[in-house]
Amino acid sequence: MKTVGYAAHSADSALVPYHFERRDLRANDVAIEILYSGVCHSDLHTVNGDWGPQPYPLVPGHEIVGVVKSVGADVKNYKVGDHVAVGCMVDSCQECDQCHHHEEQYCRNGMTGTYGAPDRQTGDITQGGYSKHIVVREEFVLRIPDNMDISKAAPILCAGITTFSPLRTWNVTKGTRVGVIGLGGLGHMAVKLAHAMGAEVTAISRSKNKEKEAIAMGAKGILASTDADAMAAAANAFDIIIDTVPVKHDVTMYAPLLDVDGTIVIVGQVGPLEEPLTLPLILGRRRIAGSLIGGIKETQEVLDFCAEHNVYPDCEMIKMEDINSAFERLAQGDLAHRFVIDMSSLSAE
Amino acid sequence: MKTVGYAAHSADSALVPYHFERRDLRANDVAIEILYSGVCHSDLHTVNGDWGPQPYPLVPGHEIVGVVKSVGADVKNYKVGDHVAVGCMVDSCQECDQCHHHEEQYCRNGMTGTYGAPDRQTGDITQGGYSKHIVVREEFVLRIPDNMDISKAAPILCAGITTFSPLRTWNVTKGTRVGVIGLGGLGHMAVKLAHAMGAEVTAISRSKNKEKEAIAMGAKGILASTDADAMAAAANAFDIIIDTVPVKHDVTMYAPLLDVDGTIVIVGQVGPLEEPLTLPLILGRRRIAGSLIGGIKETQEVLDFCAEHNVYPDCEMIKMEDINSAFERLAQGDLAHRFVIDMSSLSAE
Repeated sequence: MKTVGYAAHSADSALVPYHFERRDLRANDVAIEILYSGVCHSDLHTVNGDWGPQPYPLVPGHEIVGVVKSVGADVKNYKVGDHVAVGCMVDSCQECDQCHHHEEQYCRNGMTGTYGAPDRQTGDITQGGYSKHIVVREEFVLRIPDNMDISKAAPILCAGITTFSPLRTWNVTKGTRVGVIGLGGLGHMAVKLAHAMGAEVTAISRSKNKEKEAIAMGAKGILASTDADAMAAAANAFDIIIDTVPVKHDVTMYAPLLDVDGTIVIVGQVGPLEEPLTLPLILGRRRIAGSLIGGIKETQEVLDFCAEHNVYPDCEMIKMEDINSAFERLAQGDLAHRFVIDMSSLSAE
Repeated sequence: MKTVGYAAHSADSALVPYHFERRDLRANDVAIEILYSGVCHSDLHTVNGDWGPQPYPLVPGHEIVGVVKSVGADVKNYKVGDHVAVGCMVDSCQECDQCHHHEEQYCRNGMTGTYGAPDRQTGDITQGGYSKHIVVREEFVLRIPDNMDISKAAPILCAGITTFSPLRTWNVTKGTRVGVIGLGGLGHMAVKLAHAMGAEVTAISRSKNKEKEAIAMGAKGILASTDADAMAAAANAFDIIIDTVPVKHDVTMYAPLLDVDGTIVIVGQVGPLEEPLTLPLILGRRRIAGSLIGGIKETQEVLDFCAEHNVYPDCEMIKMEDINSAFERLAQGDLAHRFVIDMSSLSAE
């Protein structure tokens, strides 16, 4: 199938229109016309080569919402016209213990990323959601609940599941004291999801500038990390902290905010943390953990959860041709929302 | 009560004999004649002022085994002649949630250390186990099981509980894959305890030099951290790693050894870790945690466990007058055993 997207051709070039082929349908494949594509900070990092060399040309995008255009002969769960979604993975071995218990993101043989990864059968490099169409095996296609606003659903596929999964793993429920560091794409979803789970949520940010927005998202307020008195008063105040800071930072200042046995979960920063002091960990049996997106089953759960609880990311809709300026704004940081590309802005021709 | 011990009089002086008073018995106090006193690396750090200024003169020692000499009017559980022990704490508030669920080490109001801490009633500085006698409230006195070799029990009070507690917290049981980094006072106890719990234990050390000793302790063998091929082959091989390294180090090299959801527990190093990379944490939902000794109830459990399973630290018995040369050997590191002071070597006069 011929399609068109926006691709990076090198680490330092802008994204430009790129015509390419999607594979012919295998028996278990679903062909999707993409309607909306979320813009994740990791798209920017990846195309810029921040996380290693990439196989250019590269079409980023792993927050994909669309409509089924055709299905392979053996596809059971989707039919033409269904609203569906694709997240950060498009394949895994399906045979290991991790795949068997629905954590394909930790597949023993390595999950296949939605873009920039070799297809498990052909070795062709996968291309992502900044395009008009995608072909994905049924097992990695999600269903968009009937009552969901599809124009706002895309960021749930990465920003949503990346924060939902640790909230579930660490048993966040009614009354759990949750801190969320950062109020960007990930952080604002963490606040909304934890609030919808019944948790007591506090946003943690350098200043209280965005407190009104944080409260609107469901937080009780903002704890200003630059306010030493407030930080001291908040010692032991959290059962879990979701740390969405995307740059190198010091977790030692946050660790004492955790109660005994509390965990700070890193979901934003890929790279080195500043040297952590062990004492706040030892003195409260506190933990620093990481968490990677979530499995396909859990990704379906977060879509269903968001539809049920009317939780949506704050989205700014952009046209495909505006992607490079969106990347510039993303690089400058401090956006309390997610860009979503309206793919109807890109002609299929 | 008049007693004598060995005290440091400044951060850079040797320990010398020191005559001082133990408090008169309160109604809930137990007076103990100390028979054996273990030598912990933290004694050395503390008297040297490595962890902050100290109230000199200071008698260290928090691995204490002795015999009851007298008891206060309200003491219920101990009588004259009982073999008893005292560990790292001699008091806590007894009123907070942590005290109520037997984790006095995390007391909300701060536990009282066995030495160098203000007594909760008088403010007098507590003095430790390098002495002939100690007076401790009943709630912080442990019972030595009848069948225990009391000459080897002392190190269980710190090295034992410090490694036993995280093994319990992280549910180590038959078949759990446990790695132990370092084979010193803490590490060799971690190997023995985990082995006695039925775990598959591997010691992790820079070289295989001590492999024979590690196997004798119950390890399957040594994984040499300097052997890149062996380290790569051991990816995902552990459910938990007990990290007893007492100096600044890099945990990033060990994190990939953990399986998904595995935890590396820091029990040795107080201070900054080298900058950890987040990727091994994120890619396997791995965790870095700390753990502090254990509660009184759990300390009794480790004593009982060691008696039942015939687990003892490897001890080198020394005389009180040899403490300064023992400190020198400890500072040089690489001791796969614990010094224990035979307190009969110190005249009460």
